[in-house]
Parts: sequence; structure tokens; C-alpha cells
Amino acid sequence: MGKTILDKIKVTPLKIKKMASGNVMRILRKKELKKWNFGEAYFSKIKFNKVKAWKYHLKMTLNLVVPFGKVKFIFYSQNEKRYRIIEIGEKKYSRITVPPKNRFGFKGLAKHESIILNIANAQYNSKEILRLKKNKIKFNW
Amino acid sequence: MGKTILDKIKVTPLKIKKMASGNVMRILRKKELKKWNFGEAYFSKIKFNKVKAWKYHLKMTLNLVVPFGKVKFIFYSQNEKRYRIIEIGEKKYSRITVPPKNRFGFKGLAKHESIILNIANAQYNSKEILRLKKNKIKFNW
Repeated sequence: MGKTILDKIKVTPLKIKKMASGNVMRILRKKELKKWNFGEAYFSKIKFNKVKAWKYHLKMTLNLVVPFGKVKFIFYSQNEKRYRIIEIGEKKYSRITVPPKNRFGFKGLAKHESIILNIANAQYNSKEILRLKKNKIKFNW
Repeated sequence: MGKTILDKIKVTPLKIKKMASGNVMRILRKKELKKWNFGEAYFSKIKFNKVKAWKYHLKMTLNLVVPFGKVKFIFYSQNEKRYRIIEIGEKKYSRITVPPKNRFGFKGLAKHESIILNIANAQYNSKEILRLKKNKIKFNW
């Protein structure tokens, strides 16, 4: 059986160079972008216990990292009626690569605000993003 | 008189979209990269009152933003015997674009650790970076 859309979401552990004055943390290098190129980078902050959901990108591939705090990402496949839950943060420092056509939301798990960086292959465009209100998909946040 | 190397360092204020659950903060869009493209992105954290200095990139153009905390960047031109000091942070949210051949260092000004994101036009390469110890250039940090 082929990979489903949820299986194609990729989690890549990233290197941290420890330094007394403050660590250096890898995010993304050009050679890792095999099929596409840089489009836009932006931060989303998420407060403790707050949820941003649900989003669905028609064309955009996302690269998500959390350099501060801890965030739970929920990906939901309507076809499969299946969820995939991925937690990342400064203590589990990884990059989530999300291909287009994944429905997702996220929740802040750190008591202070958490920071998400997204490096995407396209510039933000409201026409390529579909939004659903949080309560339109049942999930025990 | 033409622009000097210090004058060519560009500070661009960036938009923040305020949201109750956590803000969305612009960083960089492809159309803003006129002469070059994405090479690598990485985070550097810097603790309170700590200094990382001095660095000099032969080829790399940097885009620096501080989504958390506050950082003082010092750029030093040996030819001009002149400094340029730029402070950015979450309350003065801007991007500093640094062309190659600028000598610089930085200091953490927030009581907690500050976070710097660099989006550069080249992948990190120890051969294109020249380092000087902090005390090799006189500056009252």
C-alpha cells in the first residue's frame, strides 16, 4: 500500500551546537530543498493552552520548527478519518515538513508563549488557504 | 560621496499581526530577495549580557530578526574606524540585512535568553567566515 498523506509528513531531528553564551540551532539548508525553493518565512506565536485550528494549504509546503517552548501539532485526514499528532519544541528539536493538502491545527504546551517558525515554498496568499472553525472537526484538545 | 559599507546595512521594520492566541510576525518574502536566493536558516540564542564577537563573512549576506528578547548588534568598519549600533527585538521588530564584508558582534539585552534567526544566501561554511577574539577590537560592550 502506498504512503497516505499523513505518512508523507516528515519529521527531521535537527542539530544543536551547545555554547555557553547561547546555542546555535540548525533549521534548513538549501540542499535539503530538493523539489522546491524558498517562498516566505514567518513566525507564529502560540500562548499556553491556546489552539489555532484548522488550516489547509492547497499548494504550500511548510517547514515548521519550534526554537522556544513546546507545541503539539495535529494533522487530520478526512479520507482516512485518522489523526497524526506530533510534538516538537526546544527539548525535542526537529523540523516538520508538511506537504500541501494536510488539514492541521496546533496548541501551545509551554507555560510561556511558544514560537513557531515556518519556512514555506510560497508567499502567503489567502486564496490558497482554506480555514475551518475549531469545532468543525472533533478533537479532544 | 558613495555609501560606505556600514551605510549599506539595511534595517526593515516588519509587520506583526496581533492575535489573542499569539501573534503572527513577518520575516522575509521571496520578492524581497532581489539579487539572491535562500541558502540556509539557523537560530542563535544569546544569554543576558553575553557577547558573541567578532565575525566577518566573506560572501554571505545575512537577514537577522529577533522574535524573542532584545539584541544589540555592533558593526565595525576598520577602514572608517567607525561603529554602527543597531538594537532589535520583539518590541522593535525589524530585519537587519547585512551584506558580506561587515565585521560584527552582538550582545543579549533581555534578562531571559534572546533568539536570533538568520536567513542567509549561502550554507554555513567555516572557510568563508573570519573570526576575531572579542578583545581584538576595542568596544565598550
